[in-house]
Amino acid sequence: MNGTAPGRLYGVGVGPGDPELVTLKALRVLRASPVVAWFAGPGRASNARRVVAAHLHDDQAEVALVYPVTTGAVEDGSDYEGLLAAFYDEAAVRLGALLADGRDVAVLCEGDPFFYGSFMYLYNRLRDGFETEVVPGVVSVVAGAAAIGAPLVCLNEALTVLSGTMPADELAARLQASQAAVIMKLGRNLPKVRAAVERAGLLDRAHYIERVTMDEERLARLADVDPAAAPYFSMVVIPSAAAAAR
Amino acid sequence: MNGTAPGRLYGVGVGPGDPELVTLKALRVLRASPVVAWFAGPGRASNARRVVAAHLHDDQAEVALVYPVTTGAVEDGSDYEGLLAAFYDEAAVRLGALLADGRDVAVLCEGDPFFYGSFMYLYNRLRDGFETEVVPGVVSVVAGAAAIGAPLVCLNEALTVLSGTMPADELAARLQASQAAVIMKLGRNLPKVRAAVERAGLLDRAHYIERVTMDEERLARLADVDPAAAPYFSMVVIPSAAAAAR
Repeated sequence: MNGTAPGRLYGVGVGPGDPELVTLKALRVLRASPVVAWFAGPGRASNARRVVAAHLHDDQAEVALVYPVTTGAVEDGSDYEGLLAAFYDEAAVRLGALLADGRDVAVLCEGDPFFYGSFMYLYNRLRDGFETEVVPGVVSVVAGAAAIGAPLVCLNEALTVLSGTMPADELAARLQASQAAVIMKLGRNLPKVRAAVERAGLLDRAHYIERVTMDEERLARLADVDPAAAPYFSMVVIPSAAAAAR
Repeated sequence: MNGTAPGRLYGVGVGPGDPELVTLKALRVLRASPVVAWFAGPGRASNARRVVAAHLHDDQAEVALVYPVTTGAVEDGSDYEGLLAAFYDEAAVRLGALLADGRDVAVLCEGDPFFYGSFMYLYNRLRDGFETEVVPGVVSVVAGAAAIGAPLVCLNEALTVLSGTMPADELAARLQASQAAVIMKLGRNLPKVRAAVERAGLLDRAHYIERVTMDEERLARLADVDPAAAPYFSMVVIPSAAAAAR
């Protein structure tokens, strides 16, 4: 024991991709953190790091948390789950050692840390041992509505956020019951998602959005998209019909 | 006709209340706008204006759009609807005149402009006549999850965002079908909402959050809250059970 007070773990939401959609609080926290950590796919750059790269400085240590497999394999079952759990365990041990040494650690998170983010797996493993703080961020859901210029949800309506990894029947049923919906995590789920949207009778209202607010942003009607493949950073937005008419 | 190019209408999301949860883009747009407009209840200060007050400057004209009635009367039926529609019509005429005169107008919006925001009613009335741009903001939904330190939703789960103005049966049914849920717009709907959460068997997982990220923020278990009254800026958050266990 050296008597140093332990560091604090921050989950920092950096927003959907546009470096201007970072909050003042996110910038303050990440600039002040001696350690900045981020997740990345094997052989890939971190998208969250790219968003805030201009604000990082040489005095900061960076910790790359590189997934053992690509996110495209999510549906492949228990082997993948076990591999990921071990990866998060190990990542938590690495960051825990830095925190125990008295250093604050800021984990960069695309969008918001607690909204489908991997940060929660570190948080669950470290929250009992260390002080934690989450800086909320702009989620892609509302950035998508802004990009297509469509009010998303109004008045006494429900908005449903779904994952493209759900079974097709569940997707279609939930879409049918929603006034407005967003489907995240398309990737290779896009053909299934498109079919579910069509079954729910919503194809004419559905927008496809790829890499929202990034330089490579792409907007299209879902009906016009080749469903063969979509990148992970893509979604379907079905804005409220009532919100456009008020 | 004086040949001036028309101004551009901006909807600027300023986030949930903490002035540090404003994005760089929101600040840039609102500082550069010669006209800043905001909604407010009769006799009340604008909460959105308070969030960014430090960044406004004397060269800017401000336009107060004051509701003819308080939001508490939302459920009172068609008279209220007609009154509001006329109010939005008149507000759009006021801002349209400024835009036609070549001035950009930034409308300040709590949270995000297209997420249950009044901005959409101006947008729908002005979008065909003028260039528009929406700057997305941090929504109270994710700020609430950060405040209570609870991962909101993960993996292949659905998140349902509901309005406290919904009928009790619909609230209970939708809550029962959700892995994670947020109920906005509590106000005098809180007793109904509390009963619906209890009927759905979710009372032990439900958090009550008032004025999230503001100085007056208040957090409690929904089970411990006196349901007699809640301010408009309050919500119930029911985070995913799975997200806390991963």
